Amino acid sequence: MQKTFNIGLCGLGTVGTGVVKILQKHQNEIVHQIGYPIEVKKILVNNMDKKREGNIPLSLLTDKVEELVEHPDIDVIVEVMGGIEETYEVLEKAIQNKKHIVTANKDMMAIYGSSLLQFASENECDVRYEASVAGGIPIIRSLTDGLASDRIHKIMGIVNGTTNYILTKMIEQNRSFEDVLLEAQQLGYAEADPSSDIDGLDAARKVSLLSTLAFSMSVQLQDVDVRGIRDMSYDDLFYAEQLGYTMKLLGIASRDEGKIEMSVQPTLVPHHHPLASIKDEYNAVYVYGEAVGETMFYGPGAGQLPTATAVVSDLMDVVKNIRLGVTGKTSVQPQFETKLKHSSEIYSKFFFRLEADDETGTFLAITSVFAEEKVSLDKILQMPKQGRATAEIVLITHEASKEQIDNVLHKLESLQVINGIHSYYRVEGEGEA
Amino acid sequence: MQKTFNIGLCGLGTVGTGVVKILQKHQNEIVHQIGYPIEVKKILVNNMDKKREGNIPLSLLTDKVEELVEHPDIDVIVEVMGGIEETYEVLEKAIQNKKHIVTANKDMMAIYGSSLLQFASENECDVRYEASVAGGIPIIRSLTDGLASDRIHKIMGIVNGTTNYILTKMIEQNRSFEDVLLEAQQLGYAEADPSSDIDGLDAARKVSLLSTLAFSMSVQLQDVDVRGIRDMSYDDLFYAEQLGYTMKLLGIASRDEGKIEMSVQPTLVPHHHPLASIKDEYNAVYVYGEAVGETMFYGPGAGQLPTATAVVSDLMDVVKNIRLGVTGKTSVQPQFETKLKHSSEIYSKFFFRLEADDETGTFLAITSVFAEEKVSLDKILQMPKQGRATAEIVLITHEASKEQIDNVLHKLESLQVINGIHSYYRVEGEGEA
Repeated sequence: MQKTFNIGLCGLGTVGTGVVKILQKHQNEIVHQIGYPIEVKKILVNNMDKKREGNIPLSLLTDKVEELVEHPDIDVIVEVMGGIEETYEVLEKAIQNKKHIVTANKDMMAIYGSSLLQFASENECDVRYEASVAGGIPIIRSLTDGLASDRIHKIMGIVNGTTNYILTKMIEQNRSFEDVLLEAQQLGYAEADPSSDIDGLDAARKVSLLSTLAFSMSVQLQDVDVRGIRDMSYDDLFYAEQLGYTMKLLGIASRDEGKIEMSVQPTLVPHHHPLASIKDEYNAVYVYGEAVGETMFYGPGAGQLPTATAVVSDLMDVVKNIRLGVTGKTSVQPQFETKLKHSSEIYSKFFFRLEADDETGTFLAITSVFAEEKVSLDKILQMPKQGRATAEIVLITHEASKEQIDNVLHKLESLQVINGIHSYYRVEGEGEA
Repeated sequence: MQKTFNIGLCGLGTVGTGVVKILQKHQNEIVHQIGYPIEVKKILVNNMDKKREGNIPLSLLTDKVEELVEHPDIDVIVEVMGGIEETYEVLEKAIQNKKHIVTANKDMMAIYGSSLLQFASENECDVRYEASVAGGIPIIRSLTDGLASDRIHKIMGIVNGTTNYILTKMIEQNRSFEDVLLEAQQLGYAEADPSSDIDGLDAARKVSLLSTLAFSMSVQLQDVDVRGIRDMSYDDLFYAEQLGYTMKLLGIASRDEGKIEMSVQPTLVPHHHPLASIKDEYNAVYVYGEAVGETMFYGPGAGQLPTATAVVSDLMDVVKNIRLGVTGKTSVQPQFETKLKHSSEIYSKFFFRLEADDETGTFLAITSVFAEEKVSLDKILQMPKQGRATAEIVLITHEASKEQIDNVLHKLESLQVINGIHSYYRVEGEGEA
């Protein structure tokens, strides 16, 4: 008799509908690769009466989670409904019933990922979550398999499409943050409440997931230092361009001598850096490995079918493992104790944009502050502000510690000649020669 | 008792030495991930007396292949010695003795890959060859695992670092092909006999390996249409730039309605295309999937440690499979019959650079040829040649079939007003708006 593998699909929103589409459309190729068909047995929905896209038999729908997690014929739970605590409990119940898990849920994984993986492993169940980071880009696999033999030193990712879209349009079209955000909301690229995107939380969740894998440490979401793009002005982007840099919201994670730092922050990258050319809503993850050197993985970070591709590829992996009888045996526990760098150990260049009195001695006063903190300057741009007795001063430092930069900021704030610190941002990569 | 997995290393050149280095340096992390150490048991070399880099015990070296492929304690043969027929025979013998194979040998895989995979599968052995395409970039895994659920329509790859280095320097430094080639040879980026790189054969081998995986068809190396960069001039690159394009040597493979085309040829890509920004000796593979859309994988295409990273990651995979008892069970035979497109079914835009008499009627005569073959023109650039009674004419067509373009070329050749067809190249992607 022909065996069929059955899934219980939790959620029939954008991604869930995409999963059903891909399973239907590519069934032939899927059967060829894994030997058996995959069928959707039950679908958990909130609202039984809502009209649904595509031809999904009503008999599959249920609003009772037990009909999925306790169903004797269901092999794998595909979770694409979102939510954190409740969803985690559903998946725990599923694992108790020996169901394997494929999820696209970064919010839940960033908080409960290590518990879930541990519990699954004890129950010989698989948990896969490729779709939770950078949608259609197979970055999790690349870290766990393709670059498994290497020691990863640094990851820098454009892992939030909404903010990359906003920054791209701001600089290309000389527009304000608020203006582009509104457009992005109208186009459906940004949510009605955009805060988790524009304040960096969404990216921070992805950084914590990638760091856990890349550094083999169990990291906490709250250890990611987060700063979004809400306060950015067109001028910040413009001056960055003038100095040879493109502004991106980067998730950064790096390791030196067993200690790590993790952050999400607006960052200047040189025009020639691979990340600088990533435009609009695209995502890219740059990985620097000790042996492999520079690599980058580029693709759509969201969207129905890209995300569903990642979900179904994970599902095929799990089914292969079920067939071979090796589920729950491929996940690896973190190897190293989590040690975070102190702010005196986090080094980078920094960009400052200041407004100061346009008079003798101003520049000396400012540079003295940097000199006192032993921060040397790489690039300087000074222009009079039109119609005002002030000058705009843009500086890029050489490498300095976060601690030094915090000290500089503190001193600049109390400097008489300074009328305002417009902005300061991290700078990554070597600039143009 | 602690089990150790043993490898027989065939070849101790650049990559072989890199494999030994990574196994030594990352032993701790490798043991954590796969549970057991990996040890080099024997190394096959040509010359027993040659001085070797690093601290490799002389007792490991042998020039007798039997000491590896028949060694009772060796689990995996790592083949990094190159060669085709003889090497294939060595690996066949290894598989007969139930050894698994990890190879970086694209030359051999492009010809004997499907036989080797088939034979290994019959013997429950694994064969892995990630390092054979694009060095440190995990592109094979991305096609077989990460994008497994998708239907790949097109692959375009910069898969030869030498030619990408040459093209980058030609355009950036206004230099001739011959001049940059000489420099590349001095720097060790190009071989003393550079023909397999610059004439496209190296890239063609990679295209055939990628096509087999992406389209699930068994393709032949001779079905890849190959054209190298030996005849390119700085002017070709210059005019391409003027019209908004960057010239790259691309391996192209695409599928429509079950039929495929494969080629290696100099190709114009728009400046804003992800492939246009890949510089120097870097590689990148652009993959267009039906569901996922545009993705790209970027990294070092060669070099000791990047390539060795791919080899050791493969090795770790094989060891995991040995431990789980599932070797030889994960490879998938091609699903579809190989059908090649006829030249009337291969569509793209084309770039022409012609020299013609600078007199009335010339342009009409030329455009008439295109019109007769129903090829319409997208961009036209005409300039008088300094100090001559001729004009340089650069054209970019709209989409046309290869057959149409061949007809146009044939007619242009016999046109009186044309003094020379300097060059013609394929054009990919949409140009600037």
